[in-house]
Amino acid sequence: MATDLDYFLHPESIAVIGASDIPGRVGYMFIANLIDCDFHGRIFPVNPRLDEVRGIKAYSHIKDIPYQIDLAIVAVRPSAVPQVLRECGEKGAKAVLISSAGFADGDAQGKNLGRSVVEIARGHGVHIIGPNTQGYMNLDAKLVVLSVPSPASLPDPKGVAFVCQTGFFYWDWIFRNPGLGIGKAIDLGNMCNVNHADFLEYLDADPETQVIALYIEGVQDGQKFMEIAGRVTKRKPVVALKAGRTERGTAAIASHTGSLAGDDTVCDAALRQSGIIRAMNMNELNDFTKIFASLPALPIGNRVGIITCSGAAGSLAADACGEFGLELAKLSTATTEKMKELLPPWAAISNPLDLFPVIEVDLKYSYKKALNAFSLDPNIDALILITIISSNLTEINAVDVFHEYAEGGPPKPTVICGLIDDEWLKKLTALELKGIPTYPTVERAVKALAAAYSRHRFLNR
Amino acid sequence: MATDLDYFLHPESIAVIGASDIPGRVGYMFIANLIDCDFHGRIFPVNPRLDEVRGIKAYSHIKDIPYQIDLAIVAVRPSAVPQVLRECGEKGAKAVLISSAGFADGDAQGKNLGRSVVEIARGHGVHIIGPNTQGYMNLDAKLVVLSVPSPASLPDPKGVAFVCQTGFFYWDWIFRNPGLGIGKAIDLGNMCNVNHADFLEYLDADPETQVIALYIEGVQDGQKFMEIAGRVTKRKPVVALKAGRTERGTAAIASHTGSLAGDDTVCDAALRQSGIIRAMNMNELNDFTKIFASLPALPIGNRVGIITCSGAAGSLAADACGEFGLELAKLSTATTEKMKELLPPWAAISNPLDLFPVIEVDLKYSYKKALNAFSLDPNIDALILITIISSNLTEINAVDVFHEYAEGGPPKPTVICGLIDDEWLKKLTALELKGIPTYPTVERAVKALAAAYSRHRFLNR
Repeated sequence: MATDLDYFLHPESIAVIGASDIPGRVGYMFIANLIDCDFHGRIFPVNPRLDEVRGIKAYSHIKDIPYQIDLAIVAVRPSAVPQVLRECGEKGAKAVLISSAGFADGDAQGKNLGRSVVEIARGHGVHIIGPNTQGYMNLDAKLVVLSVPSPASLPDPKGVAFVCQTGFFYWDWIFRNPGLGIGKAIDLGNMCNVNHADFLEYLDADPETQVIALYIEGVQDGQKFMEIAGRVTKRKPVVALKAGRTERGTAAIASHTGSLAGDDTVCDAALRQSGIIRAMNMNELNDFTKIFASLPALPIGNRVGIITCSGAAGSLAADACGEFGLELAKLSTATTEKMKELLPPWAAISNPLDLFPVIEVDLKYSYKKALNAFSLDPNIDALILITIISSNLTEINAVDVFHEYAEGGPPKPTVICGLIDDEWLKKLTALELKGIPTYPTVERAVKALAAAYSRHRFLNR
Repeated sequence: MATDLDYFLHPESIAVIGASDIPGRVGYMFIANLIDCDFHGRIFPVNPRLDEVRGIKAYSHIKDIPYQIDLAIVAVRPSAVPQVLRECGEKGAKAVLISSAGFADGDAQGKNLGRSVVEIARGHGVHIIGPNTQGYMNLDAKLVVLSVPSPASLPDPKGVAFVCQTGFFYWDWIFRNPGLGIGKAIDLGNMCNVNHADFLEYLDADPETQVIALYIEGVQDGQKFMEIAGRVTKRKPVVALKAGRTERGTAAIASHTGSLAGDDTVCDAALRQSGIIRAMNMNELNDFTKIFASLPALPIGNRVGIITCSGAAGSLAADACGEFGLELAKLSTATTEKMKELLPPWAAISNPLDLFPVIEVDLKYSYKKALNAFSLDPNIDALILITIISSNLTEINAVDVFHEYAEGGPPKPTVICGLIDDEWLKKLTALELKGIPTYPTVERAVKALAAAYSRHRFLNR
């Protein structure tokens, strides 16, 4: 299957069946997005009532197109989909995206239609993404196959792939992490044919993809999924948010994508056994994906050094370490001696190291010295930097020190969190490209770092 | 004690002992902030080496000041603090803020100094905030008593009070919720004398305060704390983040404020018994405080109606309801009929109600109709709106519909969450003043709403 998915991700020719010349309509948006992303191949609008769409000649029928079709996008009313799909098959299209909703996610009639779609696809050897999908993006190849408008500027790809049964999560990722970018963003929709496992296999072999995030409503062929996931997670981190943890969620899923969520305890065990890192909510999906997308190397131990300028935030970080299985490193004698030179005689030299006592003196210099000492300390496997960066506190704003520390890659796995006002956020998240992910709270930073450490343990079982 | 705290929050005259004319220094910052906030009373810098600070006459000694002193701010080296405190007592100052650190948070010598401070305070009947505090703000009276620069524009007070053993959390609140504002922001520091219970009692009687957020490292006099908290929570919601949940956290606290965190199981039981809503992390402290600061009324039942334009987000919200004890309302026949007119015949009319099928048609109109129906539905106690608001999706941007719905106060307790890009965030958080709090993820919205419902149950036991 892996190579077949290339017809979706690297097509040379695309037909849009149900093309429209009305801006906003799905049949228009697919074409507009393909034009706007400078799709290098051929586009064929199909609609018997139109001569052209955005200046591109339209055809009455897919069979009239005088070229081979790699990908057919279907945006017609549900009842018309089976016949259109048959025609796509006859035309020799290898990949079909069915945007239309109202199949497994709809009423009894829709569910019947859904079953026809699966049978026809099987008969013609056609691979289907959907139905009920807003499409996908392969930004590694600058390809946008979407039924919704894409933002004016899309972030550069940076090795992150999202495979979801919705577009919601990849947009969420893009909005929250404009600096980290996204390479592949897939909405599988109802998954009548192509599913998570197929894309996991594809992305495993994809040199552009470094970390894979999944949103799962239901797993098709659990055996196959676990087999493939078990292989992929040996090479690439896979983070999954699985809905349907409760009875209420399971019912909601049935009317969203028609998936069977399955028993959550079984799912959970299966995910973990496959080496998948499970996110329990949207924040975790974001935070865990980010740590793998940003950290240049996994922590090889769980002994953490914490540098803070807020004692309270240090206390919370220590609590979170206790909760998520990280240890507070015992500072080496060398580190302790160096820190004694920095801090007033009455101040405790401990971990978390609280730089608040020198907040009036030279906090930036102190961060620099502490970072240097902690980096060299053999007792420390990873660093948590807690900082306060805001426009009213420029004196203690150590963001330049952090950028200097990150130059050429941070010497140890490092995360940043703390108090950051909007004005400075971008300067701090720019560190993520240099290998230091940032988090809005200490607990989320610690939890993400713990996920990275457990990945190290998984790879070194 | 309640009236005595007025010497801190409504002083007529303030002496700053250890005044400095060097910008950035603590002894300078207190004076600069008092000037910048247009403090209406008298300011007396005290430093034998200075004639004036920022144009205000300085005195060599507090006893030389020819006026009564309500509040003395002490910013001298730790070893000098006991003598200065004695002199403040002799001068008749009723309230003293000790900014200096290095007492219970310091070494053995510091801990001894801390004990002297407590004894002297007792002898003179002086109330002390600190040591080791950056100060406090009473924005209800436009008073800024801070050792750090305050932002150019501070938000208008809106009934929120933070009482912490740090400044970290009130800044965090201010940065994250500029629209909701803060009335009182207190850093108690080491709490050698004035503690959480004293402020709880004060804020209980304070007509400006509607919701109280606490950050607790240790509780002094647990019996008194529980007694007072038990009274206050009958009238006002109190949210508390308690550090020291783990052994690591407890050790960190010892070097931060020198507090004894105590056994967490006991603390947890005591907090809950007092009717305090416990936040387990920074996000919860923010999210729970926000729901009480923004909702005009508590939900009187746990039957939730969810309107979404992302089926996946609806599934997650349903899961979160299952997890946090909210029920999905069974839509009334009237609501179901109205929604049938809105959605295509194949679409499910269920709760969560997914408007995605009409995303192409008129999503704003659909939100409006759905909001109207859900508001009137007697089966629904509270609403969760899941939305997608971004610059590339203006067609489905229903933010104006939400503002219209909120005019004059939302008819039912309502929260908003979803996918919101930076450009639109302010337009959405502006709803918080109208009574609709916004959350960055569905799970956080549901959890906060569940906290509001459990407050209702607590008040109606």
